[in-house]
Amino acid sequence: MIVTMMGTIAAVLTTSAMFPQAIRIIKTRDVHSISLLMYLANTFGIVFWLIYGVLLQELPIIVANSIAIIPASVILILKIVLGRNVKK
Amino acid sequence: MIVTMMGTIAAVLTTSAMFPQAIRIIKTRDVHSISLLMYLANTFGIVFWLIYGVLLQELPIIVANSIAIIPASVILILKIVLGRNVKK
Repeated sequence: MIVTMMGTIAAVLTTSAMFPQAIRIIKTRDVHSISLLMYLANTFGIVFWLIYGVLLQELPIIVANSIAIIPASVILILKIVLGRNVKK
Repeated sequence: MIVTMMGTIAAVLTTSAMFPQAIRIIKTRDVHSISLLMYLANTFGIVFWLIYGVLLQELPIIVANSIAIIPASVILILKIVLGRNVKK
């Protein structure tokens, strides 16, 4: 019971964490201080956490990473797209 | 064997992901596009993942989050400190 609760709180926090970052970028169109390398590693890492969660049959890990992949990939795409516009 | 490998790759990627972001901020002193809310949620979330990993006795989760807490809290502190300087 405690384990699932800890995992769920952790999942909610780290999953929801990237949404305000994605929203901030959408609003400000500013990606200057965002690290491309971070979101490349983060997005691929989340895919591996997802596989890991499925293999372990651990619901918090599966739910967290299927949601987290959304803002992570949005930030990655915006960094690539908006980052290139700045260079023109 | 496969499970631990997946967890280890995921841990390495998501743990190392935040280091380039911390380094970028240290170099550029620019935190404008960084979301404070993200790193508040992220840092607390990592603490809960750490507790979760310990309860589950899952080494990849324990190792990943004891390392990840370092860049996460560095970015959080820099966002607070450098973010305030901008407002002055």
